[in-house]
Amino acid sequence: MRALHFDGTVPRVTERPRPDPSEDSALVRVVLAGICNTDLELLKGYMGFRGILGHEFVGVVDQGPSEWHDQRVVGEINFACQECPMCQENLQRHCPDRRVMGILNADGAFAEIVRVPIANLHIVPDSVPDEVAVFAEPLAAAFEILSQVDVERGGDCLVLGDGKLGILVAQVLDAAGAHVLTVGTHPDKLAILERRGIETVLTSDWVPEPTPLVVEATGSAEGFERALAATKSRGILVLKSTSAERRNINLAPIVINEIQIVGSRCGPFPPALSAMEADTIDVRSLISQRVPLRDGNEALRRAADPSQLKVLIEP
Amino acid sequence: MRALHFDGTVPRVTERPRPDPSEDSALVRVVLAGICNTDLELLKGYMGFRGILGHEFVGVVDQGPSEWHDQRVVGEINFACQECPMCQENLQRHCPDRRVMGILNADGAFAEIVRVPIANLHIVPDSVPDEVAVFAEPLAAAFEILSQVDVERGGDCLVLGDGKLGILVAQVLDAAGAHVLTVGTHPDKLAILERRGIETVLTSDWVPEPTPLVVEATGSAEGFERALAATKSRGILVLKSTSAERRNINLAPIVINEIQIVGSRCGPFPPALSAMEADTIDVRSLISQRVPLRDGNEALRRAADPSQLKVLIEP
Repeated sequence: MRALHFDGTVPRVTERPRPDPSEDSALVRVVLAGICNTDLELLKGYMGFRGILGHEFVGVVDQGPSEWHDQRVVGEINFACQECPMCQENLQRHCPDRRVMGILNADGAFAEIVRVPIANLHIVPDSVPDEVAVFAEPLAAAFEILSQVDVERGGDCLVLGDGKLGILVAQVLDAAGAHVLTVGTHPDKLAILERRGIETVLTSDWVPEPTPLVVEATGSAEGFERALAATKSRGILVLKSTSAERRNINLAPIVINEIQIVGSRCGPFPPALSAMEADTIDVRSLISQRVPLRDGNEALRRAADPSQLKVLIEP
Repeated sequence: MRALHFDGTVPRVTERPRPDPSEDSALVRVVLAGICNTDLELLKGYMGFRGILGHEFVGVVDQGPSEWHDQRVVGEINFACQECPMCQENLQRHCPDRRVMGILNADGAFAEIVRVPIANLHIVPDSVPDEVAVFAEPLAAAFEILSQVDVERGGDCLVLGDGKLGILVAQVLDAAGAHVLTVGTHPDKLAILERRGIETVLTSDWVPEPTPLVVEATGSAEGFERALAATKSRGILVLKSTSAERRNINLAPIVINEIQIVGSRCGPFPPALSAMEADTIDVRSLISQRVPLRDGNEALRRAADPSQLKVLIEP
């Protein structure tokens, strides 16, 4: 089958063997896949990943248990052992032995077929089109914040970053009833939020005010201290950016202002799918381009352009 | 009056004017004062402080409202405006206009007399001797953790650091029912905890295990990443160390492991005084030396010796 494979040097569209079936997995024929900033970080050496890239997808079950046959599905990306103490506590996303689709010891979805454990699959509601469903994974990551932090109705929230995740986070917090201000550098990206009545401001025009809930989603380590400075004493700073970059940081403000920092990674799929079904979050406006899998390298190049949002790959 | 004053270059024992009385303050005759690591940081330039040092004390009210006359007191160190939104939320310790005794725009307690707002005073129970009461401020800082974090009965806690604060924190968490392991570098300091049945280990012998609640109290910025690595996924890392030092840090583990970092500074005096009255925390073993105020510089030198714990100053 055709796949976008990374051997540690350069990504290549190449022929790879179709994955072997296994009892507790399904082989899913990928219909659409999305490029995430993490994919671009992996190409720079993050996680030392080798294999087929891609962890955002929607597809149709091609082979697996009969009740899953031909189901349209999305899939959670952390493949857990289901047996360790973390899994027993229902924290499979933190299983220390997990493999992670397209990120850690598991092939990903930039391929004609991807193998996914049955436990990780979710059926896509009929009313949700493919180009919406493909956002299930990043939207779940945005919803993760609601499972970690009490978002006060009418409470002030600040979202730093107008990338894909920032735009989803701002909408999720807004839908949860918060009063959201999003700070970014791209007027056209911020316009997606403005159209939904969410306040935005350009970084250059922004005058920081201490805010009780701040989400750092700039995708760069340098956003951290700016986010910290904008967090009110006793407030919460949610960190969404993963970056391998080390950064020179003064930790004293965390202690002096008794700030709570909450690391936030992957999230629950059901609320994301429900929001898609209820059409409460605009994901379609994030689609910048659709590129065939055979032009996978070109797709990665376009996704790395800061002016772009989501680049989708069509196998 | 005699006082230990810092002019930004060197600390000096010198004659200073007795503070003026004011309507909402008391003048307290200091009986005992304690040297904190923060005092040593101030001498290195932290907070740019100029004035009389010292924020841990017990004393007797010398001048003030008649109901406070001759009362034996300890005092909270954050002098709040009592009017701003933070103060209205009962978060006086985070008042943005606060002065802080011996730390920020307010003279401290390494003096014969210190002026303290009435709102900050607490009467010391009769059964609590001066050399115990003088620990009210640092013990309150240890109790702050219980007001921020749910400490599970029997739950595993790790305390990094066997300095003054680490030893108090370990005892407070132990008294709250947690199963505490303290990691340090001084066998004689760790012995204080061992005598109370609290487990300890030397840093050199320590094999980190992921722990759900970790308290970083090493007093140095370099402890942070070690503490982070020892925090279980979805666990809590309480930061107690303030240091002006910048540090090169990789933030990715916070996000990947969804760790919650809780900055923790000053705490509530009432639980500290109650614990002293009930004699549930051993503070006396932390006293290394008592030095007269006229030898204040010598007291600071001794406090900077890593083999020492609490050095007390007697005016």
